[in-house]
Amino acid sequence: MTEALAATPEPPYYAVVFTSCRTPADDAGYAAMAEAMDTLAARQPGYLGIENARVEGGLGITVSYWADLESVRAWKQHAEHLVAQRLGREKWYERYFLRVCRVERAYQWSRPER
Amino acid sequence: MTEALAATPEPPYYAVVFTSCRTPADDAGYAAMAEAMDTLAARQPGYLGIENARVEGGLGITVSYWADLESVRAWKQHAEHLVAQRLGREKWYERYFLRVCRVERAYQWSRPER
Repeated sequence: MTEALAATPEPPYYAVVFTSCRTPADDAGYAAMAEAMDTLAARQPGYLGIENARVEGGLGITVSYWADLESVRAWKQHAEHLVAQRLGREKWYERYFLRVCRVERAYQWSRPER
Repeated sequence: MTEALAATPEPPYYAVVFTSCRTPADDAGYAAMAEAMDTLAARQPGYLGIENARVEGGLGITVSYWADLESVRAWKQHAEHLVAQRLGREKWYERYFLRVCRVERAYQWSRPER
């Protein structure tokens, strides 16, 4: 699930860019929660896709895509997601930055088949 | 440089979210160019910061932050950056998606000192 580029529609839509630095604590618990949240997010109204990357021992970036601000807000307030956010602050994150963005233009490119 | 969260000002500003899948080709050339482009971007007018993460053998995400659309456009058209973009399509990327976004809200959190 986390390997692919998100297949988003034509703009406008919303992107939530979540960048974080992990603590060294509880890698297994973090990985399990991250996967559970990706799966749960994908079932929410307005969900368009998610992209994840993390440098080993360094910065992680998760970008989730949403149809509108209402779906961004609803996901932020989802009960299970609120638990994950609290545990993130208690255990898994040293720092994070969350940015809510309106996607105005998008381009994609794929290597031509030979 | 790529380890830190970008210290961006209060919104609004712009984020360019570049997500990509690499080819297996020329890791060293790619890494050198990525570093050169991070350094060059940081010298452009309107540059606010950059964040990078990549899953080994998988998805990479680079988010660069800019004061306005004019600085986004100027960086896209920078002569050395155009060369890097061309080499990326020739050698380094299997696929990519580039999204130009207006950052509307931002929150950050840091673990309290104990």
